[in-house]
Amino acid sequence: MADAAAGLHLEDFHDGQRFESTRHTLSVEEIKRFAAEFDPQPFHLDEPEAEASFFRGLAASGWHTAALTMRMLVETLPIDGGLIGAGGEVAWPRPTRPGDVLRTVSTVEAVVPSRSRPDRGLVTLRTETLNQNDEPVQVLTARLVVFRRR
Amino acid sequence: MADAAAGLHLEDFHDGQRFESTRHTLSVEEIKRFAAEFDPQPFHLDEPEAEASFFRGLAASGWHTAALTMRMLVETLPIDGGLIGAGGEVAWPRPTRPGDVLRTVSTVEAVVPSRSRPDRGLVTLRTETLNQNDEPVQVLTARLVVFRRR
Repeated sequence: MADAAAGLHLEDFHDGQRFESTRHTLSVEEIKRFAAEFDPQPFHLDEPEAEASFFRGLAASGWHTAALTMRMLVETLPIDGGLIGAGGEVAWPRPTRPGDVLRTVSTVEAVVPSRSRPDRGLVTLRTETLNQNDEPVQVLTARLVVFRRR
Repeated sequence: MADAAAGLHLEDFHDGQRFESTRHTLSVEEIKRFAAEFDPQPFHLDEPEAEASFFRGLAASGWHTAALTMRMLVETLPIDGGLIGAGGEVAWPRPTRPGDVLRTVSTVEAVVPSRSRPDRGLVTLRTETLNQNDEPVQVLTARLVVFRRR
């Protein structure tokens, strides 16, 4: 990629390093559009049914919160070669609601060089997706494949 | 909900129970549309750049595979009150490609009644999202909140 030289490499990461994204305001229309395509359940689609549900009001799909978190991470972390996730753990401690103003705060928890492939390593990144009250709506701990400088 | 009585309750789940979804063929247009909104990286958007990347060809965002998996789970598991995920672990052992025919195979790994809330419990569900060659493109182990019959 043309801008590869400008991106972050494995050597640029260290434990405790912190990255914060810009904010994204989530509309009720976005919530319903995502849910209609990927998670068509009443509590993501219809206000009266959502009021009577576990969520007690319209809530975004957890996978919508995850997808928006990815968007904010892509905008935040210019890793050389891109953000390549091998997997991770995700939790949704509270619902994401229409009108929520989301942002991500990410902390590097581990940087582990690969033993078998000396050109790369794994960065463990804990990302809290916070709403406008600084409450976490998602906590993601992801393992990212990151390359060394040539 | 009107059809609540017809849905699955905590008592209907047991270890080793298996659920299989119908199939979904993923188009290149869907991959690029999801990526443009949620994961705008070259290897999800542009064939020549994808060829030169870690993925050696266009690949769907892992979060797109996750969202499609959710859609297939909603169609597969008619749980009373809906599919309510508390969180889980996700891994993407290989890329999802344009034209892949995806389906999910889910296995109940644990059914744990809540000690503090006798009306509900947690079901641990391991869902493999398989391509047309029966290779897993995603493995999700999710904790679902499931209610007892009244």
